[in-house]
Amino acid sequence: MSKFSLYPVTLNGSDIQKKREEIREYFHNTNMIFEKVFELLESDEAFYMKSEITRHPMIFYFGHTATFYINKLINMKIIDERINPDFESIFAIGVDEMDWDDTESKNYAWPKVQDVREYRTKVGELIDNLIMNIPLTLPITQESDMWIILMGIEHERIHIETSLVLHRQMPLEYIKEVSGLTPCLKVADAPKNEMVTISACEVNLGKDSSHNLYGWDNEYGKESLHVDEFQASKYLVSNSEYMLFVEEGGYENEEYWDEEGKRFLDITSAKHPTFWVLENGEYRYRTISKIIDMPSNWPVDVNALEAEAFCRYKTQKDGVSYSLPSEAEYGAITLHVKLKDIPEFDENSANLNLNNFSSCPVDKHNFGGIYDVVGNVWQWSSTPIHGFEGFKVHEAYDDFSVPTFDNKHALILGSSWASSGNLIMKHSRYAFRRHFYQNAGFRYVVSTPHVEDEIDIYESDELVSQYCEFQYGDEKFGVENFAIACAKLASKFATNKGKALDLGCATGRATFELAKTFDEVEGLDFSVRFVQVGSKLKNDGYVAFHTYEEGELFTNKKITLKELGYENLKEKVSFWQGDACNLKPNFNSYDLVIATNLIDRLYSPRLFLDTISEKLNQDGILILTSPYTWQESSTKKEFWLGGYRDKEGREIKTFDALKTVLGDKFELIHTQDIEFVIKETSRKYQHTVAQATVWKKIEL
Amino acid sequence: MSKFSLYPVTLNGSDIQKKREEIREYFHNTNMIFEKVFELLESDEAFYMKSEITRHPMIFYFGHTATFYINKLINMKIIDERINPDFESIFAIGVDEMDWDDTESKNYAWPKVQDVREYRTKVGELIDNLIMNIPLTLPITQESDMWIILMGIEHERIHIETSLVLHRQMPLEYIKEVSGLTPCLKVADAPKNEMVTISACEVNLGKDSSHNLYGWDNEYGKESLHVDEFQASKYLVSNSEYMLFVEEGGYENEEYWDEEGKRFLDITSAKHPTFWVLENGEYRYRTISKIIDMPSNWPVDVNALEAEAFCRYKTQKDGVSYSLPSEAEYGAITLHVKLKDIPEFDENSANLNLNNFSSCPVDKHNFGGIYDVVGNVWQWSSTPIHGFEGFKVHEAYDDFSVPTFDNKHALILGSSWASSGNLIMKHSRYAFRRHFYQNAGFRYVVSTPHVEDEIDIYESDELVSQYCEFQYGDEKFGVENFAIACAKLASKFATNKGKALDLGCATGRATFELAKTFDEVEGLDFSVRFVQVGSKLKNDGYVAFHTYEEGELFTNKKITLKELGYENLKEKVSFWQGDACNLKPNFNSYDLVIATNLIDRLYSPRLFLDTISEKLNQDGILILTSPYTWQESSTKKEFWLGGYRDKEGREIKTFDALKTVLGDKFELIHTQDIEFVIKETSRKYQHTVAQATVWKKIEL
Repeated sequence: MSKFSLYPVTLNGSDIQKKREEIREYFHNTNMIFEKVFELLESDEAFYMKSEITRHPMIFYFGHTATFYINKLINMKIIDERINPDFESIFAIGVDEMDWDDTESKNYAWPKVQDVREYRTKVGELIDNLIMNIPLTLPITQESDMWIILMGIEHERIHIETSLVLHRQMPLEYIKEVSGLTPCLKVADAPKNEMVTISACEVNLGKDSSHNLYGWDNEYGKESLHVDEFQASKYLVSNSEYMLFVEEGGYENEEYWDEEGKRFLDITSAKHPTFWVLENGEYRYRTISKIIDMPSNWPVDVNALEAEAFCRYKTQKDGVSYSLPSEAEYGAITLHVKLKDIPEFDENSANLNLNNFSSCPVDKHNFGGIYDVVGNVWQWSSTPIHGFEGFKVHEAYDDFSVPTFDNKHALILGSSWASSGNLIMKHSRYAFRRHFYQNAGFRYVVSTPHVEDEIDIYESDELVSQYCEFQYGDEKFGVENFAIACAKLASKFATNKGKALDLGCATGRATFELAKTFDEVEGLDFSVRFVQVGSKLKNDGYVAFHTYEEGELFTNKKITLKELGYENLKEKVSFWQGDACNLKPNFNSYDLVIATNLIDRLYSPRLFLDTISEKLNQDGILILTSPYTWQESSTKKEFWLGGYRDKEGREIKTFDALKTVLGDKFELIHTQDIEFVIKETSRKYQHTVAQATVWKKIEL
Repeated sequence: MSKFSLYPVTLNGSDIQKKREEIREYFHNTNMIFEKVFELLESDEAFYMKSEITRHPMIFYFGHTATFYINKLINMKIIDERINPDFESIFAIGVDEMDWDDTESKNYAWPKVQDVREYRTKVGELIDNLIMNIPLTLPITQESDMWIILMGIEHERIHIETSLVLHRQMPLEYIKEVSGLTPCLKVADAPKNEMVTISACEVNLGKDSSHNLYGWDNEYGKESLHVDEFQASKYLVSNSEYMLFVEEGGYENEEYWDEEGKRFLDITSAKHPTFWVLENGEYRYRTISKIIDMPSNWPVDVNALEAEAFCRYKTQKDGVSYSLPSEAEYGAITLHVKLKDIPEFDENSANLNLNNFSSCPVDKHNFGGIYDVVGNVWQWSSTPIHGFEGFKVHEAYDDFSVPTFDNKHALILGSSWASSGNLIMKHSRYAFRRHFYQNAGFRYVVSTPHVEDEIDIYESDELVSQYCEFQYGDEKFGVENFAIACAKLASKFATNKGKALDLGCATGRATFELAKTFDEVEGLDFSVRFVQVGSKLKNDGYVAFHTYEEGELFTNKKITLKELGYENLKEKVSFWQGDACNLKPNFNSYDLVIATNLIDRLYSPRLFLDTISEKLNQDGILILTSPYTWQESSTKKEFWLGGYRDKEGREIKTFDALKTVLGDKFELIHTQDIEFVIKETSRKYQHTVAQATVWKKIEL
């Protein structure tokens, strides 16, 4: 099975042609494995089944990894043309169970498996071609076009692992055996666990931008931490070791569970780990494609809540304080065993990179006295994922990490049998909500009690903060709050006040303001970094952000739903991530669509304008506001609506272009200027005069 | 003599260490040649002689090429520490005879030759070290730190050539023979010139940013031109051919000379080319270090005015219209002979790269029927230098090209015997004012009469235009013109109204405004792109610029001295290029120094603040205005005055820091806020609230 899964390519080198060939081989290897994983589905029917009610059916994931390439390449302006706009909207988002993901089945008409298969082939040919032909210099950096290709490949590697988990959660009748994807056969009694001492040390987390392997944004930066001497369990907790906890009533005893854990028990009525099956009074074990006798010496698969409950149980039983390791303590373990990174790391020394298609005994892979430091199953940690010092969002994928920096996503460490690509790199960092199932178990530690820092709940992202201040902050130079002014204009001109869409809603202020007059308002933005602010205001009752005063100095501001007077409006608003140039079909039937300061930030404003009338009801109103500040970083010059001279040298102005483009579907009923002021520091502001144009849909 | 001068290094490659070695070798070769050229000076005394009254003495150039490295490296934040701040201010600027160059001897106390020599050694060691150690990826691009080193090397290559011209202009007693720097010995009768037909063709000028050789900013971009069939002289015009013009009274006959030519004759009383010497009724010829019998078959050295006068004379004589070739026609000649670029070009097939230390016969180097297409002497063209489509200033050297885009600088083509490095690259473009002497002669053409486009006299540089609009344009949001408001504040608080310095004067509005109350006002800016606007207003009576309205669309504005009411002020103002952090000693004795929006744009604001009191008279006033918008692109964070937290976590605000830094030399007598508005487009503005602080010098 060796060489079934290739190691990722390094970023440097001197031979460009050779590097292209390496990337191409790695791309096709990834694609091959991903498609093989979907061979596990018994029939086409199985593609439309959901493993969990809160997730999309498998057909979504099958299309998703291909559309990901196209959406990122379009967004980064590396390609101009879509392959299939429908697929690229419905397969675009919804992989994590966030508020703004829409997994309601009724909203989707899923395509045929065969059509998606053909689509995947077309995307594959395009990517193959780009790999061989886009400009390339070495080393590949985060700014390189090739980085976006690598991003697409590593994204698919993640979905290889998560799809295997979803398949394991499917009813058995939908899963078949696939040759080559076979589980480990070594089953025996579990070894007795014991503690290993790890010396005190300094742990330096984070990698440098010049590192030689692809990384996600959360891996870069620096964090240096001192770790006191502590003890770690020699083995991962086995099914056998966990069995005692189950048998001694661990799932019934509330004192082992924290508040989140209790909620989990309430909702799921869980009595044992999810991949255990109780048959005739005996616990058996679900692999991907069958149920086998309990493999006592394999690691138990649990979520973080179960792992923590076990630690509390064991603490009570032994009178010693057990807990999950922190990220730094895990770092100390890797130092203790002098763990090597790939490509030097020998993949046969651990259960990873898809060498097996299941876990294997916890006493098989010895790393100098402590077992399974990497591989077998992921190990839950006590540390919520957060950005290191110097963290910067990668602009092509700004919703990869930031939405998980919420204290609710705990790091999983060390990779599993199903991990490959970036997932098995030493610096990679993945996190899931604590009730999620992955190929994850745990080891416990006895260490100086550490309180995990609460992550700063203030929006520290500079652009998001700036928008929070713009929408929720103070007025300046006597100019009225722009979101409020726009909402007033909308209620003045809207004929009917049913459903409204706030397109490019940013941090959501106008969405709430519109709810004062409309029955239902949807706020939609391309960037989850923005969407989550409105969503947080709705769900948590406040937004908190930094407002910059001078240089790096800022003050904190917190605005509550109550002081905004929005408490009775929150049920009327909802927030969604989406692409205004390729809206999903379920966004429709609006009495009002308002797009404030959006058109000059779209990659293709024509695409948006050409399709928006379909989204409006009879007598529907479209409101655009914009200062028409076209910039090549947002919109390629060939897609500007105005602000340029045509081939005959005539000045093309945006307002005239709007009249031409919208003229046959809309009547222009009003125009006015609306000023707005955006604070950069307490002394520096952007002061802008947007033109608002109000359009009424013509019945054809 | 082969390999005396190395070819420049290419920018790409795969072996970084090898590339460093190549650059190092090329650097030392350049330095060696430059210093050898200065061995021509007979004694240290000669270093203090000026070749021309309008130029600095030779000691300036000897120091200049070394300080250039340091000033650029500091400016680009590649190094933090100066080697010798005094040298790096007095040797910084003044190589072209621009209005803002200060070549008055009384303003300089030149250092000893030996001290400059030691300084050059220190700089050489630093550069050698940087070449081997700064971060380097291949290919080297305009953004690379190594580009700044290559810029310094190529800058020194230019001064090798121009210093040889200056030495040739020195009185002979100051020049000695240096072994290895020997002239060509082949002298004979000149061949009879004739015309060669060059076919019609399309000429594509300009090079791409991915080109494999270093280039100055003016070389990049695109210009495609059609050239009709024309005829070009087979040989460069020889001394013998030009002799007829002189003997037939060419220098006395006004009809051969245009207005600029007549002024040249008036001022210089020239009767023959400058390197001809009339001895006992016979013309002899000045080489660098001696006077020899007239080499009839060498090309004549003339300026563009003389070359054009010759063409008019020959036109009248032959009844055929002769002129200098345009840049495009010269391009057609290079296509005609299929000219190769270095490094493929064989340096022995032309008189260039310092293979000889003089011209050589015009019939020695045959390029497929036409001689000296490159090498021997530069060839004057009729085309004023201008930016190609897509021209972008290189930020490290913004005064290299832009100040010469004034219709007054004509391109010289093809390189000379003294050219090396970038000067002998196929895409290089150099231009001089038409009365300047270089190692330049000419060939003539008979072609379709072409009118050279007048270059757009409007400031099209986006940042300069924005500042012109800011200082000379319309008010917005009811906010008073900032330059006027600052000048009012200054006249209110200044105790004495003698001499004022407007530091960071940008396009010069406040400089003029201050002249309403002060006897004399000096405007100084780091960037010549800005300085030349104020200078143009003073000298030409107007400024003209683009003001952006929407996207790329702009309107033209023209503001005259008369409508500003400044006609009687212009003798009181002068404009200079300089570095506020390292002011030349002759900037002193001010009653007022005003620095508007400067301190947060300096690379080291402390350096400025620590030294500015020395520049002020008793009771002198210092006014600072700033919004304190610190940014790392201008000022490394470690040099910010405020806007950060110190190691103890305390907020450091700029205003407090100013009080600490200035407190022992100044009394703070007034503070107030002053708003200003900068237009980006007709709908987008920067609206800023600067803090003005007024400081009175304390007598110690």
